[in-house]
Amino acid sequence: MPPDGVFRVGVLGRGTVGSAFVELLDEHADRIERITGLRPILSGVVSRSEGVFADVLESSDLVVELIGGISPAREWVLEAMRAGRHVVTANKQLLSQFGEELFAVAREAGVQLRFEGAVAGVVPVIRVLQESLAGARIEKVHGIVNGTTNFILTEMARSGLTFEQALAEAQALGYAEADPSEDVDGRDAAAKMAILARLAFDTPVRLDQVPYEGIELITPDDMEYAHELGLGLKLIGTAERIGDRLSVRVHPAFLYPGHPLASVSGPFNAVTVESEAITEITMSGPGAGGPQTATAVLGDVVSAMIPPATAPKATEALELVSDVVSAFYLRLEVADEPGVLATVAQVLAERAVSVKSVVQKGLGDQARLVMVVHPVLESRFRAAMSDIAALSVLRAPPRAIRVLEEEFG
Amino acid sequence: MPPDGVFRVGVLGRGTVGSAFVELLDEHADRIERITGLRPILSGVVSRSEGVFADVLESSDLVVELIGGISPAREWVLEAMRAGRHVVTANKQLLSQFGEELFAVAREAGVQLRFEGAVAGVVPVIRVLQESLAGARIEKVHGIVNGTTNFILTEMARSGLTFEQALAEAQALGYAEADPSEDVDGRDAAAKMAILARLAFDTPVRLDQVPYEGIELITPDDMEYAHELGLGLKLIGTAERIGDRLSVRVHPAFLYPGHPLASVSGPFNAVTVESEAITEITMSGPGAGGPQTATAVLGDVVSAMIPPATAPKATEALELVSDVVSAFYLRLEVADEPGVLATVAQVLAERAVSVKSVVQKGLGDQARLVMVVHPVLESRFRAAMSDIAALSVLRAPPRAIRVLEEEFG
Repeated sequence: MPPDGVFRVGVLGRGTVGSAFVELLDEHADRIERITGLRPILSGVVSRSEGVFADVLESSDLVVELIGGISPAREWVLEAMRAGRHVVTANKQLLSQFGEELFAVAREAGVQLRFEGAVAGVVPVIRVLQESLAGARIEKVHGIVNGTTNFILTEMARSGLTFEQALAEAQALGYAEADPSEDVDGRDAAAKMAILARLAFDTPVRLDQVPYEGIELITPDDMEYAHELGLGLKLIGTAERIGDRLSVRVHPAFLYPGHPLASVSGPFNAVTVESEAITEITMSGPGAGGPQTATAVLGDVVSAMIPPATAPKATEALELVSDVVSAFYLRLEVADEPGVLATVAQVLAERAVSVKSVVQKGLGDQARLVMVVHPVLESRFRAAMSDIAALSVLRAPPRAIRVLEEEFG
Repeated sequence: MPPDGVFRVGVLGRGTVGSAFVELLDEHADRIERITGLRPILSGVVSRSEGVFADVLESSDLVVELIGGISPAREWVLEAMRAGRHVVTANKQLLSQFGEELFAVAREAGVQLRFEGAVAGVVPVIRVLQESLAGARIEKVHGIVNGTTNFILTEMARSGLTFEQALAEAQALGYAEADPSEDVDGRDAAAKMAILARLAFDTPVRLDQVPYEGIELITPDDMEYAHELGLGLKLIGTAERIGDRLSVRVHPAFLYPGHPLASVSGPFNAVTVESEAITEITMSGPGAGGPQTATAVLGDVVSAMIPPATAPKATEALELVSDVVSAFYLRLEVADEPGVLATVAQVLAERAVSVKSVVQKGLGDQARLVMVVHPVLESRFRAAMSDIAALSVLRAPPRAIRVLEEEFG
């Protein structure tokens, strides 16, 4: 029996994700204890050079499987569940090939089997299909579920690179593995779509039932014509209800600019779920990387520890602040006379408010001056506005609207 | 004691959301029983003209509060939790003003208090902050959390309408209430940001601590200058960590086109969560409407019934299909001689494949013909491709890539 108040987590595998998970678990133990009332404890790790599976199993309430591949992952996951342990895994091969067996054993044993990290990293598609949308009849799931190919296609579109050049760039940046074949031929995406289709449509779907095409044959010409036709190219996975039948497939596809997946670029993943009751929801974020997948796995562990009853007790208690930094759009109605812009610019300079762009328009005997200023502490900007409001050339009170700077991309 | 195998759900309120929820619960009872092992039963409804709260409470395992406002919602929710009942609510006023009291009582009573429907309808922001990201240190939550104002701003930008005109249009289409003041002045968004900030930062935040500005003063001129400056205007809620302090605020803001929230238009909601470990995830979908909120509430009820152990037994078992309808991009390298386009067009016409657009380019003694065809059953399109491949004018095998039609917006 475990000691009271702790929850013992055994980890199988200490690769990139396994190591990141062990670190995260330690780092967030306090917060998790606040949320769940139980303290998570690392009960053991099994890797090539450490630990014995039977011992780690014996001393764990939950087993995290991060070995990957089919064997011994399958045997160990089955054994853990039959021994009454919850399991969290990020193993898409295992789930897309042996999903029904795993689900059946989990049901028989009355344990939880969670696998958010298997599809789209920390983008919560599994959780949403299993829980949030339990009350929705899903019509279609559409997704960019492979970050490697999305990065390659983005670079081909942006820089006119060939497939081979873009792949080399992806490898250099760590977005593609040395052997990228499962990513670029569409098989990785097909495994993920099999998992999503199973959850969305309660229908068993195995990887070998999902037809897939990759992006190896896409040429810079294709990109160029697509551009002329106003289209963008993505590797798209689809699972959709067609009458009382189901189609699951992966292939490159051109998208019109208004499509919810058209703006997803670089190594990002995104999944759109359509249902009559909800129209559609789209979730996007970075694809699988070590920290992302480890974060998803830890989220699963927390969920398995206890149904989160409610918000944890407030303890962090950050102090609330109201004076923050922002860029601003500033609109001034001024007399149309010489030196007005210089006067306004002088006031801004005195308050150390820096101008990024200006549009000035004459309107009869007055002029409108519209500026965007660089990020500045709001109180300082408001002080400059007061100074400007007091200028004799002002014809109406100055107006300001915040501008959010682009932080990504 | 409840009979074995059932889970009794009492509903407070039978407005738009309450009625939609009661219908959904009935419609999805079978599926929920498959997922959770328990059959959900409507144990009673309390509205102005039906039911007595004490009786419904007595006969329920979980109480869904959809009355709205503070009283009697607060008293009833507290009483239900103290009596050991789980509570699901979509009441943002209540949570943003009395959240700490509710959370404390839920913790003491050991019951679940869930409220996904309170923010952004079925877009799973609450669940993601509470569970998926329990293992992430969140830096910033950024959102468009009011669909009414986003619709108004979208229309102002698109059609040059004044605020008043766009508001009237929103009211005519049911996107704004007869009294829209809490939406347009930013107070509704402020309540939602108080709730999100509480969850993301474990810090108590009340509505009256969130400064907010609305969109009533935005003019068509502002939109026009923004357009000149390459900016789009949104009502943005922000909660961000600044050192060991927290800023929570709502105000209109201009966004550069690359910003993840810039492309969210019409009555949609979207929330972006930033954290070092995960970079950012963005979730978007329709804002609160009756069916969306009811779907979110039902997802909460399912989660409260049981921690979803695993995928439900596969029973729907849709038949898998592989021949589906799609538009296609078709690329042909052909001899540059008269009549080639006519020949190709003839073959397509015989297979009833309809051409949407064509780009033809001469390349020395041959030409490249790129076409996009309207949606067609894939087998029919492949047959046409075979016919074309057999034409003597072809200089290379034809190539095709699917085109996804824009279905939204």
